[in-house]
Amino acid sequence: MPDALHERLAESVRRLIEVTIRSEADEGAVAQALALVDQTVELLSTRLMPGSFGVRTNPAGESIVWGNVAVGLRNPIAPPLIIERDAAGGVHADVHLGAGYEGPPGHVHGGMCALILDHVLGATAHQPGKPAYTGTLTVRYLRPTRLGALRAEARMQRIDGSKTYAVGQLRNGDGVTVEAEGVFITPREYLGVDESQSTPAS
Amino acid sequence: MPDALHERLAESVRRLIEVTIRSEADEGAVAQALALVDQTVELLSTRLMPGSFGVRTNPAGESIVWGNVAVGLRNPIAPPLIIERDAAGGVHADVHLGAGYEGPPGHVHGGMCALILDHVLGATAHQPGKPAYTGTLTVRYLRPTRLGALRAEARMQRIDGSKTYAVGQLRNGDGVTVEAEGVFITPREYLGVDESQSTPAS
Repeated sequence: MPDALHERLAESVRRLIEVTIRSEADEGAVAQALALVDQTVELLSTRLMPGSFGVRTNPAGESIVWGNVAVGLRNPIAPPLIIERDAAGGVHADVHLGAGYEGPPGHVHGGMCALILDHVLGATAHQPGKPAYTGTLTVRYLRPTRLGALRAEARMQRIDGSKTYAVGQLRNGDGVTVEAEGVFITPREYLGVDESQSTPAS
Repeated sequence: MPDALHERLAESVRRLIEVTIRSEADEGAVAQALALVDQTVELLSTRLMPGSFGVRTNPAGESIVWGNVAVGLRNPIAPPLIIERDAAGGVHADVHLGAGYEGPPGHVHGGMCALILDHVLGATAHQPGKPAYTGTLTVRYLRPTRLGALRAEARMQRIDGSKTYAVGQLRNGDGVTVEAEGVFITPREYLGVDESQSTPAS
């Protein structure tokens, strides 16, 4: 199965989410749309993986997280965020959020801002093959975030054992709209040898 | 346009999101699904409201937030949360989160937990016709939250002028998985008369 086909399907379903919310088509068209969606669900359901997509490893040894709600290329809920790593160790993601991510009228839901910041701050702690999980996240809302184009940015502040401290923000034409700080935990089994506890391997 | 038809459409698109992620159908079926989704998008797009759904008021004077990413009945991204108010002033929402909300394999994305908690804590401050916006949200992750059934709970701690302080948590069969506290701001124009600044109306 070519990955590109699944990606295109997810992109089309993203458009479908948007027009499902915004459609003012007449009742007959909506009823027909409903029948088509049900037919599509049936087609795709002839074989389903159990549970969820999870994390897989491709032949090159890279983690594949296509089902992820923030970055998953196969997940129509994901905008998806495309995480870019700067030379200086920071990360950022440029994203456009439409009608599907609304909270206050015309604005991004505060919880959606938190979701994006959680992922982007966490990305400063993630290393290939070395996941990190959110320990604590604090989000401060400086002003409403309009639906539309947005940049999420984060950088690592320091690492203390299993804990990575990161800060970041959302920014658009209005300036910084939301700030966040977080602590991300790397499980012990993924940490390098802990010198304080190890005995020389011999 | 009957609301029920749009609700059913959103429910079907929710199923479509899930099977788009989980489908292992053969390439021909996926290609056919893609064509059907594109056809559906076209049907629904014959008339679109500009921008986003926003907040509307029904004839009974109630706020209609069908496009909302957390609770919107027309938004396929929304699980949707159904907010229940307890006699004691608390709020809760029982929700089932499937493959579309995944972060770590088999688990809810930390940012999705934050989104739900933001909305449920905020609901303690929301009153009919009196919106409240998140000022600060702090989320502590106690353990991973498995995909599946989940209860989100929140209660107001105190009100200080325009600020409502709320706390809450996510809970499932494993116990409390995530805790949160937040400050929610009611814009001045929605506050009752501020006695310290008002002069008697006469």
